[in-house]
Amino acid sequence: MRHFDVEMSDLQNRLLDMAGLVQEMIKAATQKLVERDSKKLDVVSSLEKEVNVQEIVIDDKCLKLIALNQPVGADLRFITSAMRINSDLERMGDEAVSISERASDLIKYVQLKPLADIPKMVEIVRSMVMDCIKAFNTSDAELALSVLAEDNEVDSLRDKVINDIKNLMLKASDIDVINGAVDLMFVAKSIERLGDHATNISEDIIFMVHGKDIRHPRNC
Amino acid sequence: MRHFDVEMSDLQNRLLDMAGLVQEMIKAATQKLVERDSKKLDVVSSLEKEVNVQEIVIDDKCLKLIALNQPVGADLRFITSAMRINSDLERMGDEAVSISERASDLIKYVQLKPLADIPKMVEIVRSMVMDCIKAFNTSDAELALSVLAEDNEVDSLRDKVINDIKNLMLKASDIDVINGAVDLMFVAKSIERLGDHATNISEDIIFMVHGKDIRHPRNC
Repeated sequence: MRHFDVEMSDLQNRLLDMAGLVQEMIKAATQKLVERDSKKLDVVSSLEKEVNVQEIVIDDKCLKLIALNQPVGADLRFITSAMRINSDLERMGDEAVSISERASDLIKYVQLKPLADIPKMVEIVRSMVMDCIKAFNTSDAELALSVLAEDNEVDSLRDKVINDIKNLMLKASDIDVINGAVDLMFVAKSIERLGDHATNISEDIIFMVHGKDIRHPRNC
Repeated sequence: MRHFDVEMSDLQNRLLDMAGLVQEMIKAATQKLVERDSKKLDVVSSLEKEVNVQEIVIDDKCLKLIALNQPVGADLRFITSAMRINSDLERMGDEAVSISERASDLIKYVQLKPLADIPKMVEIVRSMVMDCIKAFNTSDAELALSVLAEDNEVDSLRDKVINDIKNLMLKASDIDVINGAVDLMFVAKSIERLGDHATNISEDIIFMVHGKDIRHPRNC
């Protein structure tokens, strides 16, 4: 195996490790939210530190790979896609932190009527994240394409959740209920954003595999 | 001037043009919000189409510049930073669209007590955006650093705004007031995110100029 191929394989493995950490963060944050388990906080914040370090290490590795090997074509697309995916993964970690922090507050407030669509959103988004990582690992553009389709479902669940929360707000007679409802609203937004990042990553994979930029299809 | 230098200068100009379009979008969306002027919508959505096209053109140009010229050091950093800045600018455009759409709804609802801190947030964020574009144009890392400091002020204004909106919600006796309050809450979040993107761009400029990655300072 050429030295360059070894380095490219190392880049892929590092990104997969980082994706694994981010998946752990999302799992811990959403379990805490759905199961109201307050012990999950420390896992999320300690994983975030590791993800932040890895983001910088991976970007540095990408720059060195380009500078020292002058890749073109599919190799260059792989490296620049890796830089984008790296950035999306780190931002997914930030959303997991935000969900985890708001879940801690939610546990403290009066019990809000459980919103059944939030666990549904969580389930779809976690499956999108799993699939886009798998698609990156196996360069599977078909699987990446299937992730894009799921994002619409997340968006329509989010609309339902926001409507339910608005009705909760209207009936609220105490600030704790409003606090809880606002937290839930931002949690729904964060879950939706996890889906958006999985969508971005899937678009990057399709570009990486086929060299075709499918962002903004209605414009181009 | 070498052909490569001409191309690099063209890349910089294209990114500045794109930044100009995004600045227009932010200006139109926030004017509509603050001045309640409904005629601004078309400007924002037509500019968005242009920004989306430019994002793809600029990324493609960056890849070609790397593949054909095999740049290293500061030139390579400039190109990869341009790719990141390009992505942040496009996402800023998305936030401007979101602000503009919610402002259209806000105009329809009953008049909400004007929240004086929202125009303040807008003013700071627009100045951050202007400064980070200027810093990119003149490779001014000091100016980029000054943008980072302003982000804390945006975050604390956002907290005040969210608290004021929660109090509005608590007093609401009709769903239109709740709808308006929720729209305002997401608008405040979008304005905050504009500041986050200006922060990301400023970090990229500092990396571009000094080769030093200052993201996540507490971790590294």
